[in-house]
Amino acid sequence: MRTSIATVSLSGSLTEKLTAASRAGFDGVEIFENDLLASPLTPEEIRARCADLGLTIDLYQPMRDIEAVPEDEFARNLRRARHKFQLMNRLGADTVLVCSSVCPHAVDDDALAAAQLSRLADLAEDFGIRVAYEALAWGRHVSTYDHAWRLVETAGHPALGTCLDSFHILSRGSDPKGIEDIPGEKIFFLQLADAPPLAMDVLQWSRHYRCFPGQGGFDVTGLLGHVLRTGYAGPLSLEVFNDVFRQAEAGPTAVDAHRSLLMLQEAAGTVAPPAPVVPTGVAFAELVTPDAEPVAAVLGALGFARTARHRGKPVDLWEQGEARILVNTGAAARRDGTTLAAVGLESPDPAGAARRAEALLAPVLPRRRGPGDAPLEAVAAPDGTELFFCATGRPELPDWRADFADVPGARRPDRAARVDHLALTQPWHHFDEAALFHRGVLGLDAQDSVDLADPYGLLRSRAVRNADGSVRIALGVGAAPTDDTVHAQHIALAVDDVVTAARRFRAAGGRLLPIPANYYEDLAARHDFAAGELESYRELGILYDRDAGGAFRHCYTSTVGRVFFELVQRDPGYRGYGAQNAPVRLAAQHTQS
Amino acid sequence: MRTSIATVSLSGSLTEKLTAASRAGFDGVEIFENDLLASPLTPEEIRARCADLGLTIDLYQPMRDIEAVPEDEFARNLRRARHKFQLMNRLGADTVLVCSSVCPHAVDDDALAAAQLSRLADLAEDFGIRVAYEALAWGRHVSTYDHAWRLVETAGHPALGTCLDSFHILSRGSDPKGIEDIPGEKIFFLQLADAPPLAMDVLQWSRHYRCFPGQGGFDVTGLLGHVLRTGYAGPLSLEVFNDVFRQAEAGPTAVDAHRSLLMLQEAAGTVAPPAPVVPTGVAFAELVTPDAEPVAAVLGALGFARTARHRGKPVDLWEQGEARILVNTGAAARRDGTTLAAVGLESPDPAGAARRAEALLAPVLPRRRGPGDAPLEAVAAPDGTELFFCATGRPELPDWRADFADVPGARRPDRAARVDHLALTQPWHHFDEAALFHRGVLGLDAQDSVDLADPYGLLRSRAVRNADGSVRIALGVGAAPTDDTVHAQHIALAVDDVVTAARRFRAAGGRLLPIPANYYEDLAARHDFAAGELESYRELGILYDRDAGGAFRHCYTSTVGRVFFELVQRDPGYRGYGAQNAPVRLAAQHTQS
Repeated sequence: MRTSIATVSLSGSLTEKLTAASRAGFDGVEIFENDLLASPLTPEEIRARCADLGLTIDLYQPMRDIEAVPEDEFARNLRRARHKFQLMNRLGADTVLVCSSVCPHAVDDDALAAAQLSRLADLAEDFGIRVAYEALAWGRHVSTYDHAWRLVETAGHPALGTCLDSFHILSRGSDPKGIEDIPGEKIFFLQLADAPPLAMDVLQWSRHYRCFPGQGGFDVTGLLGHVLRTGYAGPLSLEVFNDVFRQAEAGPTAVDAHRSLLMLQEAAGTVAPPAPVVPTGVAFAELVTPDAEPVAAVLGALGFARTARHRGKPVDLWEQGEARILVNTGAAARRDGTTLAAVGLESPDPAGAARRAEALLAPVLPRRRGPGDAPLEAVAAPDGTELFFCATGRPELPDWRADFADVPGARRPDRAARVDHLALTQPWHHFDEAALFHRGVLGLDAQDSVDLADPYGLLRSRAVRNADGSVRIALGVGAAPTDDTVHAQHIALAVDDVVTAARRFRAAGGRLLPIPANYYEDLAARHDFAAGELESYRELGILYDRDAGGAFRHCYTSTVGRVFFELVQRDPGYRGYGAQNAPVRLAAQHTQS
Repeated sequence: MRTSIATVSLSGSLTEKLTAASRAGFDGVEIFENDLLASPLTPEEIRARCADLGLTIDLYQPMRDIEAVPEDEFARNLRRARHKFQLMNRLGADTVLVCSSVCPHAVDDDALAAAQLSRLADLAEDFGIRVAYEALAWGRHVSTYDHAWRLVETAGHPALGTCLDSFHILSRGSDPKGIEDIPGEKIFFLQLADAPPLAMDVLQWSRHYRCFPGQGGFDVTGLLGHVLRTGYAGPLSLEVFNDVFRQAEAGPTAVDAHRSLLMLQEAAGTVAPPAPVVPTGVAFAELVTPDAEPVAAVLGALGFARTARHRGKPVDLWEQGEARILVNTGAAARRDGTTLAAVGLESPDPAGAARRAEALLAPVLPRRRGPGDAPLEAVAAPDGTELFFCATGRPELPDWRADFADVPGARRPDRAARVDHLALTQPWHHFDEAALFHRGVLGLDAQDSVDLADPYGLLRSRAVRNADGSVRIALGVGAAPTDDTVHAQHIALAVDDVVTAARRFRAAGGRLLPIPANYYEDLAARHDFAAGELESYRELGILYDRDAGGAFRHCYTSTVGRVFFELVQRDPGYRGYGAQNAPVRLAAQHTQS
């Protein structure tokens, strides 16, 4: 089906919005009136610009407060409409959105409303224009889609149809099943938006917190199913008012938006991109650093051994059990200290995973490989992290480890260890998108978003994971675009016994993050511990949490650049990441920094 | 009355919070448990720190999910409470806050709840501690203050009283009159917070959007009156959870907080600071600039004449009618281009205005005057703008103009002009506070806050004014802390005929902000204009708005540094500032920049 986006969903000038929509792959746009008014381009120039960009103008919107008013006011409204229809002819737009009136003079008279809508449609027809009438959730007398449809049906005018908007329908709690009672050809337009479950005043909710389908809590897929069963064949159009997107760059937002429509269509069965290939483990995490020494010191103390070196690049492989860390000192472009720059994901089908990613608009990274390098498929996540699709130790597929030569005499440590989870800092303006990306591109499941109180602001974190928990990625974001208090990038290692692991780390010269004594007095008040248990935790700075499924014990190393490590002893049933302890950990990290 | 603040209301480490509270003049604090847990200080050290800072610890909080549970769970709760009571003894805190349970195991059994609260009070009494029981607005079975009081009354225990919280009471829409039925000595604590009228889920509303009294929409003063009539003599304590304050510097937030308590007490009649002295006009606006030329060019084209020069500093006075602009090229410290740095306000009693400002914690600026300078009282607004209290041309008082010597041969223009309003950019983290400052310190009234759509984010603006509109200040803030898209600092000049004024400006070489033709087609669709009227507007870039009281016509000059001018023709009954046109104006300014 054709895809469209309202210009109000993107930031910038009208030209910037149109360019971003076209580049992201949209077929058309809704021109939002304020964007046109503020543009120095004439309607004819906008029309030509859209044509150049391969965009149709699917809708002009909104026309407000038209119907169910006294005759003299309606006459003024028709005069206003005539002006707008002339404008639309110049623009080359053939459908106008009319929202149900919020005017204090509007009367509760369906017959009058239908008659006036019919007269408006008469005028529109003279200009070759169709009127799509929509119920605003906060409309004065018409606030539900079925009521709007009854008026359209009563009017019975060929140039009058209805516009459905998933936000207005689902925010009111209306049952969308009734959509199937509307003939598809009378649904002139379909606007799609999602929203987080906020339970707030619907007007504020709509104007500031809408998001793209799949980012919120509405069953947009279900609604689309009802619409498709009517035979609706018009565009799927996104109309999102969101304070964060208003500030974000239009280009990435448009890509995020188009990806959400692809996922929605896939769920509704109207498109079939390559199926997701869910990763089955973490092959490696790659740290980029200007100075390998401090990283090597921490890795060594954690029990890792430097086992191999890349044949063509200054990249070392460190191993312990199933955990593998690459230390890259060669990426000269990176000037922001030590960062977690890439993640290797074990994939049952690396080529298929890359095809899926590309179909879902993930930027495919060029394979910069030297002679003899294994061909490695990779894409960039929204935060810039490079995601590699790997097949480790499977003879039938190229192995990334073939690029590495063993360090002579190196001994692989025999201790069990693997990556429990990785934590990545997300760009502030694309946090909601990050979870959708990982769901759509990698086929991971998103867990609930949690707030974490940092001494200098509230952070948010949302984890994505595969079914067996062998891949877990915690996506974190600061309290504001400027936030530099986020200590979020880290590698958490699963160990069998965190007390033993922490003691070994310290004995090997590693520095653990000290946790205040007050925290342990609180633990003692809340839980029973075996004799000596709490004393060990206090001594080592081990934090403790518990949910219905079990306990979680964890401690942190000091930070190198922007990265630190966590040692994690997770009971199999425990689902979380110790969010309850985050305020104490964050405060301790501020004290250290 | 004694004033107190919960540590959770301020950002930073516990030490930073305590220091900020003490410096702002609070008498005591509520220690929020998470702040203690995250602090490396022992309870004894915290106690000593508070004593050093002159702060009492008025409350330890919160203790959650205590009552109305099965006996085995209650036994565990008592064990937890014992730990906390021991801690409180070390801390020197004698009152603990217990909030009504949100525990899923809690049962709806008032008798059980009262009995268990009584047993908790028994234990508390052993430690010399009082239990203040509070109804959370989202408590599982107890969610109203009168219900909490009934349980306390039933328990009838001397160590058990109630805690009242204005947010929990007013957010539920409870009638606070019933507070007067509670004996004052059984109200163990009073927490005060305001909140904007958001109509959202009460838990989210409470955790993220609380604000200080006078910043929101609750009648906190009325509630305080009911509490005072019971004979309550404990502290007035602020407990505010706010995502913005969490990021703001603790020092200014604590001052803002204490000012709000002073204003609340003044309204309730328990303190009587010097009365506000409402300004009666704008004496001058002062631009600080590294280069006087561009500013002089715009002022000249607007019809101002350079009439006088300061006797001791590089400051010129430009005049036109009653509008006066100072152009200061001497403030070497200012390196951020041309800014609107100071405002002179006509004051019926400059010394009284300064006493009021000082009593309300406005930073009083040192009077840096040379020999012969008029003594000029001044304070700093939250955005750093210097506010001078002036008496222009009143022989009985020192006149700031006495510091200026006439420019030989300069002729005062005979055209009428005066300042319609000034627009000042506010620091992002203190926007709500700015309006409270101008209300409290200057005695101005705050108008409603409006959202303005900029192409790159949503701005907010809120105006303060005196009764006759001779002083109007629009306080604006960007969409985010980083926002550099705000073109908000400006001086609006009231003129009798904006078309004539704009033509004169242009004829004199001034550059007007061009407004897109599309805007005028929309005006034509919405309003009737006299012949030729709209053409003049289009030619000159004049914007048009209308409310129930009349019309508003306005246009903008190009920007110099961070400042521009607006020419305003305001019908007497029009209340606004052309907010409807702001998106078009902002987009045009982005196009120019």
